[in-house]
Amino acid sequence: MIKLKIAELLSSDQFLQEVEVNGWVRAFRSNRFIAVNDGSTINNLQCVIDFENTKEETLKRINIGAAIKVVGTLKESVGSQQSVEVEVKSIEILGDANPEEVKLTILSPKRHSLEKLREQAHLRIRTNTFGAVMRVRSKLSFAVHSYFQKNNFHYVNTPIITGSDAEGAGEMFKVTSFDLKNPPKNEDGSIDYKKDFFGKETNLTVSGQLEAETYALGLGQVYTFGPTFRAENSNTSRHLAEFWMIEPEVAFCDLDGNMDLAEDFIKYVVKYVLEHCKDDLEFLDKRHEEEEKSKPQVERSEMSLLKKLEFVTENNFKRVSYTEAIDILKNSKPNKKKKFQYPIEDWGTDLQSEHERFLVEKHFKCPVILFDYPANIKAFYMRLNEDGKTVRAMDILFPGIGEIVGGSQREERLDVLKEKMKALDIDEEELWWYLDTRKFGTCVHSGFGLGFERLVLFVTGMTNIRDVIPFPRTPQNAEF
Amino acid sequence: MIKLKIAELLSSDQFLQEVEVNGWVRAFRSNRFIAVNDGSTINNLQCVIDFENTKEETLKRINIGAAIKVVGTLKESVGSQQSVEVEVKSIEILGDANPEEVKLTILSPKRHSLEKLREQAHLRIRTNTFGAVMRVRSKLSFAVHSYFQKNNFHYVNTPIITGSDAEGAGEMFKVTSFDLKNPPKNEDGSIDYKKDFFGKETNLTVSGQLEAETYALGLGQVYTFGPTFRAENSNTSRHLAEFWMIEPEVAFCDLDGNMDLAEDFIKYVVKYVLEHCKDDLEFLDKRHEEEEKSKPQVERSEMSLLKKLEFVTENNFKRVSYTEAIDILKNSKPNKKKKFQYPIEDWGTDLQSEHERFLVEKHFKCPVILFDYPANIKAFYMRLNEDGKTVRAMDILFPGIGEIVGGSQREERLDVLKEKMKALDIDEEELWWYLDTRKFGTCVHSGFGLGFERLVLFVTGMTNIRDVIPFPRTPQNAEF
Repeated sequence: MIKLKIAELLSSDQFLQEVEVNGWVRAFRSNRFIAVNDGSTINNLQCVIDFENTKEETLKRINIGAAIKVVGTLKESVGSQQSVEVEVKSIEILGDANPEEVKLTILSPKRHSLEKLREQAHLRIRTNTFGAVMRVRSKLSFAVHSYFQKNNFHYVNTPIITGSDAEGAGEMFKVTSFDLKNPPKNEDGSIDYKKDFFGKETNLTVSGQLEAETYALGLGQVYTFGPTFRAENSNTSRHLAEFWMIEPEVAFCDLDGNMDLAEDFIKYVVKYVLEHCKDDLEFLDKRHEEEEKSKPQVERSEMSLLKKLEFVTENNFKRVSYTEAIDILKNSKPNKKKKFQYPIEDWGTDLQSEHERFLVEKHFKCPVILFDYPANIKAFYMRLNEDGKTVRAMDILFPGIGEIVGGSQREERLDVLKEKMKALDIDEEELWWYLDTRKFGTCVHSGFGLGFERLVLFVTGMTNIRDVIPFPRTPQNAEF
Repeated sequence: MIKLKIAELLSSDQFLQEVEVNGWVRAFRSNRFIAVNDGSTINNLQCVIDFENTKEETLKRINIGAAIKVVGTLKESVGSQQSVEVEVKSIEILGDANPEEVKLTILSPKRHSLEKLREQAHLRIRTNTFGAVMRVRSKLSFAVHSYFQKNNFHYVNTPIITGSDAEGAGEMFKVTSFDLKNPPKNEDGSIDYKKDFFGKETNLTVSGQLEAETYALGLGQVYTFGPTFRAENSNTSRHLAEFWMIEPEVAFCDLDGNMDLAEDFIKYVVKYVLEHCKDDLEFLDKRHEEEEKSKPQVERSEMSLLKKLEFVTENNFKRVSYTEAIDILKNSKPNKKKKFQYPIEDWGTDLQSEHERFLVEKHFKCPVILFDYPANIKAFYMRLNEDGKTVRAMDILFPGIGEIVGGSQREERLDVLKEKMKALDIDEEELWWYLDTRKFGTCVHSGFGLGFERLVLFVTGMTNIRDVIPFPRTPQNAEF
């Protein structure tokens, strides 16, 4: 007897073989046809039972959500819906699902809103949409590792709990083992962190970049892929308090090399899922099409999900300097007609989401890499250009998603870096180890950060970032 | 001109080609031979300069730790130390390393203790030992992903910040965005967690198992690979406050299948690094041999590092029930001679490290899987056996490392699980979602957790867990 996953059975041609299948009932019609799913594929296996010779009691227990074990014969299917089916010889109910109780959950067979599904994040994985999204997410993760490993990058696990609060990417969560009701205090009333677990104040990391830089300056090229955190009260469809980030860091690589790497990387991983997640992406493509239909005509995307993914792999990203972008925006229709909430007047202002969307979705109609931003709107560690006012920073903007990558060439000159830190009041003593990398064999080096969930959003066509991570963490929500 | 990594150049036979190499000086002798390393391999590239035609000023700057760019001709080496070398045409100092300052760091060319190296964890990656360990760690990570992906497991990112404190694996760190000096309080003096970021008390996860189970019961077979935390004051060579854990979870799989999976998995990843990290493992093998020589004869391991790794891939792990193990220990010499600190008297006591070591290192002399432990020394979610007193738990014990895997078949019966939780005073309401998995299509399922750093310890032959993670977090230490 063959015990195979449904994904394998569906592409099998070993007809008349006896097979064993374990899975969950997705549908049961005419007291004969059971659609069984085991999570290995979006597609169900049709199991045909001989209802006359099946006990009444068993038939009653073949409910949606029940776990069953089926033994039967693999046959070419007569229906057009599927290529193979199983003629059931025996069926065993492994775990029941009481229809009255199922009715109260999102497992009940009707359309539930994504909001509702989020409230039952432990069950939504049993729906077609979330099965597809999470399988794609898994394959996309593996594509990330595969890309870097085949290009001789070394994976580095930078610390999650950090003693540094100078990572500069946003508000941090505190980590402590104190009893919050009564933490030990110094004589002056301040908290006595010497008595805390780590003997100092600690936070959850917002970026592994600074630590990754120390590793790049030893191992040459490295990447991180781990969780990062923001204690920011952003209740939007693009922000999570806990998300996964990919941060490559490369020695002897300037900003041009960094842009090449980011573009090549994104194209590789998108191509990878196009090849390895055909069924799931076709399902998500149809889902996306349905969703688009419910939108007003002007808001619909011009391309289907699959077309959009192919477009990204086949076309060059447009590279535009911040200065050029400001010119384009200044002279754009929405700016002249005062349609922007934040009108573009002068060089030096930070771009808002509305500006980025205009550039990507209306003007260039393709992914855009903006580079050479004004120094004073970017982080302390970015390489100052010879003009003294811009830095070698780059952001990659994607249609529908906005910023998906932020990176830069790093300031490798000790004196310039120290001056910048002084100006921004960043403690040299706290970053002594970071400064050491500029003292001993410093070199041109670059890196970027890519928010993994934003990439999953793009690839799956989902629109809320809470729907592409298993158990989202957002303000007022840490359920499960 | 070819720009290649040193790992590629060293195996190249494109002699007489002009090449460019970027890297760091590891040694410079006779004012002629520079040993350059770029992190891509443990091996250095010998670059031979024509010192008569090189400026005095440049020669002075070729110091250990400096970053240099060399352009020259690739030649077959005359020395026996290496197969190729580069005859330098031009050399550029990219980043200096002042010898006086280098002297104060672990980059100085003498033997530093591992303790000393830990204090400069940002620089230790530039040493041979840590370069090798971290390259092996990276490859081992990829082997983990490769194994599960090729076996159709789906990667799941379970939450790091958890609202649950019932994971039951140990003390937890608190996560908050409160000002610790003055957190909001309720009238009764307790902390008002409703006002905290997540609207409830939150902690850092100690295990993703419970969430992974909900995913296994939808996707069939999943694995996690992410950071986990213990706020335990364990200052040992085997404990970290922050470490990476791998947790597969499989539906329709019992404890035997679970043991098969764990054994097959470990053999695969060890085989993978034996194939892909030859140079680094040979270096670590020699290093291990040296270390052993400094130990008293009786403490030395009988096998070299490489032999030990091959042994694991080629031999079956010994499977022994807890009850058999107790019998063996009870009748063992050290027990009879009262050499154990904790003498073995009765069935039911937890095994100590000394007992595990005896079984693995003295009695069986191979990896051992212990299974069917007494219920009362194991977690609430483990499947009760028909005997009513043991559970379907298993631990894998490795020579020199101790417990490397802990797993079990999970209790899939709602009533038994609830009873157990009641007995242990675990709040049903808090784990409502976990109980749901037993209400809707429950099934036999199993999983295990493997501490990644313990695996890296075993594979690299290092002896302190702080030396196999880039920036270790331990009591009183969260530097970098």
